[in-house]
Amino acid sequence: MSPALVTDSSPANGVHKSATSNGTIATPLCNPSLQVTADHRLKQVEAPVYAPQGGEVLLHIKATGVCGSDIHFWKTGRIGSLVVEGDCILGHEAAGVVLQCGPGVTDLKPGMCQQAKLRKVVVKPLNVKIGDRVAVEPGVPCGNCFLCLEGRYNLCEDVQFAGVYPYHGTLQRYKVHPAKWLHKLPDNVSYAEGALLEPLSVVLHGIKTAGLSLGQGAVICGAGPIGLIALAAARASGAHPLVITDLEPRRLGFARSFVPSCITYQVDRALDAEGNAQAIRKLFGNDEYSCPRTILECTGVESSICTAAYTVRRGGTVMVIGVGRPVMNNLPFMHLSLAEIDLKFINRYRDTWPSGIACLSGGTLDLKPLVSHTFPLENALEALHLCSDLSKGSIKVQIVDEVDAGI
Amino acid sequence: MSPALVTDSSPANGVHKSATSNGTIATPLCNPSLQVTADHRLKQVEAPVYAPQGGEVLLHIKATGVCGSDIHFWKTGRIGSLVVEGDCILGHEAAGVVLQCGPGVTDLKPGMCQQAKLRKVVVKPLNVKIGDRVAVEPGVPCGNCFLCLEGRYNLCEDVQFAGVYPYHGTLQRYKVHPAKWLHKLPDNVSYAEGALLEPLSVVLHGIKTAGLSLGQGAVICGAGPIGLIALAAARASGAHPLVITDLEPRRLGFARSFVPSCITYQVDRALDAEGNAQAIRKLFGNDEYSCPRTILECTGVESSICTAAYTVRRGGTVMVIGVGRPVMNNLPFMHLSLAEIDLKFINRYRDTWPSGIACLSGGTLDLKPLVSHTFPLENALEALHLCSDLSKGSIKVQIVDEVDAGI
Amino acid sequence: MSPALVTDSSPANGVHKSATSNGTIATPLCNPSLQVTADHRLKQVEAPVYAPQGGEVLLHIKATGVCGSDIHFWKTGRIGSLVVEGDCILGHEAAGVVLQCGPGVTDLKPGMCQQAKLRKVVVKPLNVKIGDRVAVEPGVPCGNCFLCLEGRYNLCEDVQFAGVYPYHGTLQRYKVHPAKWLHKLPDNVSYAEGALLEPLSVVLHGIKTAGLSLGQGAVICGAGPIGLIALAAARASGAHPLVITDLEPRRLGFARSFVPSCITYQVDRALDAEGNAQAIRKLFGNDEYSCPRTILECTGVESSICTAAYTVRRGGTVMVIGVGRPVMNNLPFMHLSLAEIDLKFINRYRDTWPSGIACLSGGTLDLKPLVSHTFPLENALEALHLCSDLSKGSIKVQIVDEVDAGI
Amino acid sequence: MSPALVTDSSPANGVHKSATSNGTIATPLCNPSLQVTADHRLKQVEAPVYAPQGGEVLLHIKATGVCGSDIHFWKTGRIGSLVVEGDCILGHEAAGVVLQCGPGVTDLKPGMCQQAKLRKVVVKPLNVKIGDRVAVEPGVPCGNCFLCLEGRYNLCEDVQFAGVYPYHGTLQRYKVHPAKWLHKLPDNVSYAEGALLEPLSVVLHGIKTAGLSLGQGAVICGAGPIGLIALAAARASGAHPLVITDLEPRRLGFARSFVPSCITYQVDRALDAEGNAQAIRKLFGNDEYSCPRTILECTGVESSICTAAYTVRRGGTVMVIGVGRPVMNNLPFMHLSLAEIDLKFINRYRDTWPSGIACLSGGTLDLKPLVSHTFPLENALEALHLCSDLSKGSIKVQIVDEVDAGI
Repeated sequence: MSPALVTDSSPANGVHKSATSNGTIATPLCNPSLQVTADHRLKQVEAPVYAPQGGEVLLHIKATGVCGSDIHFWKTGRIGSLVVEGDCILGHEAAGVVLQCGPGVTDLKPGMCQQAKLRKVVVKPLNVKIGDRVAVEPGVPCGNCFLCLEGRYNLCEDVQFAGVYPYHGTLQRYKVHPAKWLHKLPDNVSYAEGALLEPLSVVLHGIKTAGLSLGQGAVICGAGPIGLIALAAARASGAHPLVITDLEPRRLGFARSFVPSCITYQVDRALDAEGNAQAIRKLFGNDEYSCPRTILECTGVESSICTAAYTVRRGGTVMVIGVGRPVMNNLPFMHLSLAEIDLKFINRYRDTWPSGIACLSGGTLDLKPLVSHTFPLENALEALHLCSDLSKGSIKVQIVDEVDAGI
Repeated sequence: MSPALVTDSSPANGVHKSATSNGTIATPLCNPSLQVTADHRLKQVEAPVYAPQGGEVLLHIKATGVCGSDIHFWKTGRIGSLVVEGDCILGHEAAGVVLQCGPGVTDLKPGMCQQAKLRKVVVKPLNVKIGDRVAVEPGVPCGNCFLCLEGRYNLCEDVQFAGVYPYHGTLQRYKVHPAKWLHKLPDNVSYAEGALLEPLSVVLHGIKTAGLSLGQGAVICGAGPIGLIALAAARASGAHPLVITDLEPRRLGFARSFVPSCITYQVDRALDAEGNAQAIRKLFGNDEYSCPRTILECTGVESSICTAAYTVRRGGTVMVIGVGRPVMNNLPFMHLSLAEIDLKFINRYRDTWPSGIACLSGGTLDLKPLVSHTFPLENALEALHLCSDLSKGSIKVQIVDEVDAGI
Repeated sequence: MSPALVTDSSPANGVHKSATSNGTIATPLCNPSLQVTADHRLKQVEAPVYAPQGGEVLLHIKATGVCGSDIHFWKTGRIGSLVVEGDCILGHEAAGVVLQCGPGVTDLKPGMCQQAKLRKVVVKPLNVKIGDRVAVEPGVPCGNCFLCLEGRYNLCEDVQFAGVYPYHGTLQRYKVHPAKWLHKLPDNVSYAEGALLEPLSVVLHGIKTAGLSLGQGAVICGAGPIGLIALAAARASGAHPLVITDLEPRRLGFARSFVPSCITYQVDRALDAEGNAQAIRKLFGNDEYSCPRTILECTGVESSICTAAYTVRRGGTVMVIGVGRPVMNNLPFMHLSLAEIDLKFINRYRDTWPSGIACLSGGTLDLKPLVSHTFPLENALEALHLCSDLSKGSIKVQIVDEVDAGI
Repeated sequence: MSPALVTDSSPANGVHKSATSNGTIATPLCNPSLQVTADHRLKQVEAPVYAPQGGEVLLHIKATGVCGSDIHFWKTGRIGSLVVEGDCILGHEAAGVVLQCGPGVTDLKPGMCQQAKLRKVVVKPLNVKIGDRVAVEPGVPCGNCFLCLEGRYNLCEDVQFAGVYPYHGTLQRYKVHPAKWLHKLPDNVSYAEGALLEPLSVVLHGIKTAGLSLGQGAVICGAGPIGLIALAAARASGAHPLVITDLEPRRLGFARSFVPSCITYQVDRALDAEGNAQAIRKLFGNDEYSCPRTILECTGVESSICTAAYTVRRGGTVMVIGVGRPVMNNLPFMHLSLAEIDLKFINRYRDTWPSGIACLSGGTLDLKPLVSHTFPLENALEALHLCSDLSKGSIKVQIVDEVDAGI
């Protein structure tokens, strides 16, 4: 056990290798975790390990990416209506290996079997087994509300999202997760890539919602991790020409090396939204027709959204992928109206992991260059400190756990 | 000729019954018109009558409705980028009768014929003839730009829109208009109804864009002419339940008499957007599912759009039909994002007259009760003064011309 | 107990008021049922009553409509891949009242509670209670497959559809059904109307898929129950003009009395598909533009589908709602291709009950005139014989149970 | 002049360098052309050259690809309702250079100018000038019908399609074409590639209509030129995995070299549609989810369309791009219905050249390897003979004209 790791024996979290009555189990190794607290601290503590219940599996988490929202929860204690009211293990961009399966995952639950047979109910085993390498879809929707039934499960109001209080995340060694929300990784997709499927999912959902298509130009606003993935995914969708914008020349330089056919635009702080838009439009040629039909706005910053609104061609779509402040001002209402611009918003993703896996496995997308730093699980705290310091120029930081943690 | 009418002999407008060299023609009656000026005045003057050119017809305008935008041009001299830089005949909600057809409307243009035959070009006559009763689609797009070719002709940047400077409108007796942008009225649709097809078109385009459907609830914000037409059209689309909101109880009272199955909500100035939204949502029941998927926002007022954003159910659409100020503040960005709300804007309409005519002719919609006041063409000025005085409670004011003006 | 009713004491069906060990329960009244057999017979037998399990309720079925598929299962023993391999209670168009709730419907299941609390899982009670009047959505999808997760639960391959072997249907007094697949009826919607929500759902899904809209013409092929409901629903959607076709003048006469604004067309057996199409197109006027964009094909008959293909305007949609033979010939391929016609198919429905209830409750649709005959549950056999005799001219036959069957 | 070339002096075609009175002009070189005749012959004759009229330009055609439809017109005299009733110059896949501009292309037509000024009409010059390298969009729609106004100009019934009788095509040196239907080529796109934009347009329209997307599997039926372009375009859209099918191993071999990541499937004549479908589905894995959502059917052959219907996953789309016989049999109706499969058809393309140019210029697509044979214009006859002999294994044959033909 890492000397930095404090054993947390509060009833809410259980104790390693001791409890069984309350659903926890013993494991060969300890379960270090990184938690955010209600008073804006991070702590590295050992967490209890639970036994997988019906439909669940126990995972060894092998890689977790750090997301801007993790830093946000730590520093400000909330994102919109999501508030950190108690200790919570962070982490939601993850991949791992299946250690144990609860009932109903690979077999029929005995108690259900007779009743099932009586009523001829088909009890279908789920599709993962011990040893499977999997990516974690972190949000577990209720499955019962109208949004779930409509297939818009990303909007479920009862979603249990790993790493958002009160649902513990993946910055721990051993995590229980429903088998239904795991996705098998092919052999040629690494755990590191598997963990990138979560931010890729955000982008895939945005692109699907926006309707990007072959031979159409697009602008990506923001060259952070989401913007860079959006750039690569737009290129993989055949969109062309592609312009990516940012304030930081260093980030734009990385974008050029990552997707060489892209055009970069450094946002000019001296210009207003219309001014920057005009400069971006010039990169597409001098006519309305050539201007991009789609803007993938990945910053969530007000001035960038306004720039996007002035940049998109008449009848086009501004797809707001980034999240930002509760309230937005200065929206160019009459411009949106006269140009009949569709302003779309998304919340996370739905049905994106399989497509994402096909992209990574099929060679359509290579996101590996985005992982700029890697830390072992025991040094997770260090990883978050690095991410929170913008001067360090990290892109995607991952926390990995390469020990043999098998049960 | 009305004594109030000044004969305007400036070269730009020509002189009644005199000019022929510059394309004007003589008519049995004079051509009174109502014009807005660059210095925010209205004037009633006689206007020249032009001969219909290739593809054009000469109409006797029988009815024109007054629109809020007419008042706006008069009082403020502009709407967005559209500026009244000189005298301009107002009027764009119109119906009339065909008096004369230019070449190529009902016959082959002789000059084209030989060449056409040589290259086997089919020269198809257009579809109106003398005596046809028609509704006027006021916007004449260029037909050449990419937006026209895509069928989004309402977004054409070279549109020549009747009644918007520098294109003269329908508040005159004799108007030339391209045959292609006229729509024949069935016998059971009056000129007054024909003139209502223009505001109905705005609503039809909004409903089509928003995707209203049978058995789905909706909210209409604003009980002015557009809101009331939207209410009736939503009812005719089978949407249910329907809530209409306004600040004015008198308008809501009219809405109830116009569409008895609707529910009215008086916006509470003491509440903020969230508060009003909560009260509206209660009218739909207490659960998210029952809340309306679609809001037809017909005011263009910031607080109303914000209320709409908080009212619509998760994953729904706020269709902004109303137009308003250039810039909008206080947009609840994170709420739109978390609830994945689609914020759509429209600019006028496309391909809506035939549907509108089917609605009026087929008895699906009865808009006649909306015409609260009627004035003869010679008193057009009075009509505009009435409309501009909100205390008068006018709904739709029309200017009609029942003389026999045939050539 | 009705003298006509045979008590079936086979283990598969249980015995009234005796068994408890295998999950059956005692009820105040017997449970008469109408079953189809593998050897193409119908039998009226008493069926066991099961106790509602987790998430389920026990219903007293108050009304069930007879569907053509019931007759088809009886006479031919199959529909496509669905084969009657043993006794099966028929009935899937139903409404009833809630008699008992299983665990987890109105309360927390005690066994789940502690674990839920431990992991802060929200266990949300379902939304029906004893005494609620409800409509039955007969198909219970698996909830786990990708089609369920995408919201296309009607395509779930593991669906348990009431009244399709081996899942017993609603032609019995007491039926257990998952609460999730029940829909509360407002006070102004009767059980008879509640039972009509199932065929209405087929139509609503078809209309939603086809994209019918306000002021657009449409053709409905076939004036049977589905065609008549489609006619009324198309009218309620604001579609106009509407033409309905059939071979039988009597059915067309009923259509005219049911929806007076419709135009009827009697299919001419002496004409081929193109000939009939040409005659139907004439009813819309002489030009391509006026021809209907949408055909709701409700017969599933090859010649009717071909007629639909020739009738629809260029770029339009033929929505095949009716089901028919496994293989179809004579499809006018090149015509579909040159006119870019979309040929769409549907399988049942999804997310349609709430819209249907809004239509019936809000007065948008009145389907009551469709119920031509009503039989008590004990005479269900007679009802099916009536339906199977086309010469009787029945439209919708319902089987009702008006006794007080409360527990 | 090529000795094989016969000078055709019939009045319908005019005479090189002599006529001016009937709109023909003199050119520095002769104008060899390849024509199909009503009696199923091909002839190489000199054709008249017309002066460009308003909005038109005179092109020197530099490259034309031979299409299967050219062979079909020659051998059978018709495709569907399109019948060769007289001599007609073939060719519709073309690129060339602008030699002359008619009035209104780069300047204001003097006759219109005054009137335009009087009414403040904006007369916008079109967008090509002498020396521009352009691709030809061969179909010139009427611009007036409802289909043109809706943006579905590919469905215009009055389209004048180059190379389809009675509209002469591009297998000649000098051709007049409206400037509006020309698309400028960037410097890095050759004439040969420019001519490939026409078949690419068919594919782009099919992919847009079908809705292919990133990380989704697809099947392409048929490895002829359209199938191969569809394969490359599907890959460029990020679709994965991709299976292409054909009867000929040689064609599948080429497909593998052209798009190395594709999987090929040789259609087994011994299996029926279901059998071949089952084998294709196995290539995607053993579950319904992994099966392709989209089939791009590029053969138009009945058995292939049936195989596509059995191959596509539930709820998917069969996009019929290929054209075939007038009538199709054996369509698996109940399968389409139960699986809710969308059967879509297209007719040519609309708004595809700009996207196609972006693909070729931006490096997203490389179609150059498809040009297997090139012939000079004078040997056009030989090119068609080669194409018509399937044993020769040609893929795309182009006819080029590299002389300096400038005026």
